[in-house]
Amino acid sequence: MGGDHGVNSVIPGAHIAAKERSDLRFSFFGHEEQILPVLEKYPDLRDVSTIHHAPLKIDAADKPSQAVRKSKDTSMRLAIEAVSNGNAQGVVSGGNTGALMALSKMILKCLPGIDRPAIASVFPAIHGKTTVLDLGANLECDVPMLIQFAMLGSIYSRLVLGHSRPTVGLLNVGSEEQKGHEELRQAGAILSQLNFSGAYKGFVEGDDLTNGEVDVVVTDGFTGNVALKTAEGVGKLSKFYLKETFKTSFMAKLGALFALGALRKMQKALDPRLYNGGMFLGLNGICVKSHGGMDEIGFANAICYAYDLVKSDFNKKVTEQMAALDMASLVNGVKNTDNKNDAA
Amino acid sequence: MGGDHGVNSVIPGAHIAAKERSDLRFSFFGHEEQILPVLEKYPDLRDVSTIHHAPLKIDAADKPSQAVRKSKDTSMRLAIEAVSNGNAQGVVSGGNTGALMALSKMILKCLPGIDRPAIASVFPAIHGKTTVLDLGANLECDVPMLIQFAMLGSIYSRLVLGHSRPTVGLLNVGSEEQKGHEELRQAGAILSQLNFSGAYKGFVEGDDLTNGEVDVVVTDGFTGNVALKTAEGVGKLSKFYLKETFKTSFMAKLGALFALGALRKMQKALDPRLYNGGMFLGLNGICVKSHGGMDEIGFANAICYAYDLVKSDFNKKVTEQMAALDMASLVNGVKNTDNKNDAA
Repeated sequence: MGGDHGVNSVIPGAHIAAKERSDLRFSFFGHEEQILPVLEKYPDLRDVSTIHHAPLKIDAADKPSQAVRKSKDTSMRLAIEAVSNGNAQGVVSGGNTGALMALSKMILKCLPGIDRPAIASVFPAIHGKTTVLDLGANLECDVPMLIQFAMLGSIYSRLVLGHSRPTVGLLNVGSEEQKGHEELRQAGAILSQLNFSGAYKGFVEGDDLTNGEVDVVVTDGFTGNVALKTAEGVGKLSKFYLKETFKTSFMAKLGALFALGALRKMQKALDPRLYNGGMFLGLNGICVKSHGGMDEIGFANAICYAYDLVKSDFNKKVTEQMAALDMASLVNGVKNTDNKNDAA
Repeated sequence: MGGDHGVNSVIPGAHIAAKERSDLRFSFFGHEEQILPVLEKYPDLRDVSTIHHAPLKIDAADKPSQAVRKSKDTSMRLAIEAVSNGNAQGVVSGGNTGALMALSKMILKCLPGIDRPAIASVFPAIHGKTTVLDLGANLECDVPMLIQFAMLGSIYSRLVLGHSRPTVGLLNVGSEEQKGHEELRQAGAILSQLNFSGAYKGFVEGDDLTNGEVDVVVTDGFTGNVALKTAEGVGKLSKFYLKETFKTSFMAKLGALFALGALRKMQKALDPRLYNGGMFLGLNGICVKSHGGMDEIGFANAICYAYDLVKSDFNKKVTEQMAALDMASLVNGVKNTDNKNDAA
């Protein structure tokens, strides 16, 4: 029921995803009367789907705390519960992000050793692809959370993007060791001593999100969310300038005509729909958030993303890696060292 | 002496700026033996310039606190002192940002009513231009600072960019009132009641930096710095994709040939050198930081930017507007209201 287009992007999106991942099976949670007529347009999809009627839904404007209180019999809650009781291996939603986070955390719980989940996604970069987290689940992050996110991000980069030993950076305002908030300096000091699935490379800056300097960038949810939306905004601005450029003269219009195929390819490479889907990394269950405004192509990508996480046995591997570390003693060990707050 | 290219970008940059603003006069602070041979290549510039020999310089790697301690007889310190003793109306530097901030704050002091200066700059947007501050001077900002920055930014937008009543937004992770940090919610509550030179429009998000939704965006220096560098990174990524696109086929290369003039115009519109120069807004004196890596065109822009601020009598107007407000009572008045911390 979630997202701006509800069943009209979710069901056609599932249809596209089913063609790309042939062993996908679907459970649709929502109002049967809305789901059925759309689903019947896709007989192949109908054959691998079940409908679970949910009389209620969570509104996009609901506060997370409100949403949790009145979540009984909502499509979102029933879908998450399907994961917790084993009837589904992952859940994808285009609905209220805060509510999805709160409900999935309450119902699925966090993986052992993880305090809070983070929203992770992949940025296109000049060299390769960059995994970035947290993109908005936790506005403030303490030292253990930043370290947990570095571990989660590096495991993600390895399992999903195939980087054998991913490089990890902490997002800061400069690369020198004395830069930034105290939490960042402490987390950096611990990560540089830690033997984990990634290779810690120190502090990185905003342009490192898209230049491929590191494979994983870790930040708090406030900064990550602003960076994500800033990147989207500059992408739109570039597209606008390009469109205007090809309107300026007859010669430019002629040039655009010749280069049309190549320009379309470029537009596809930068298409935000192909990067749609933010995972709640660290949850004991696969839960992927689709951008609410996405059409069927974007939604299909979010579904494939959830599928790939299930197939890679992601959460089991995270659990194994976390169990091998004694996080508390590590953090306490470093906390007792240099606490100097020389920020600039 | 500052920046990656020292006198080789500063002096040619001054030469370009002198042609654009005909009544500019220059004082160059640095090593005379380095300045003189370059300056003599530009006789017109030589006629309107004086050289002030400074035997020492602050290094790019110096910490601000170190830099201040050993600042005697450095080119940066002497240049800032020229402003404080009235021998210059503004200072431009491509040197160590933290040192420039610390020294200029120590020597020039803040304007009445301003606690700390902010680095401000202008982002290109789909509609118009957006003034953004703080871009890195203050990693953490309290409520009075955010309000002061909103006032400084709106005065800047009016005087320099000609917006008669600039719209102002606070950068956050969502536009709803309950979003974000406590400081942001308090500052928003105060700004919505405040009669100042801008019109407060509420919370804005990362993409509003470049879509023209508001004329001024206020944020803390950590978030602002990450957003600025993220935007620069995505700009580079777009340029990279475009270049690759026109290499993909013979037809695309032909198209690029036809559209060459228009593409060059686009590149110019997005040229970071034309947006070079961040002002320390709120200082009792005009001090502009040029990006260290800039060539002469970038440096010329930073000089013209400083010139325009001097000509608009910027600091006098800020002082008048700040004097008209009783900041302390305003902040205290709102602090006693709702402090609920419902973040998501």
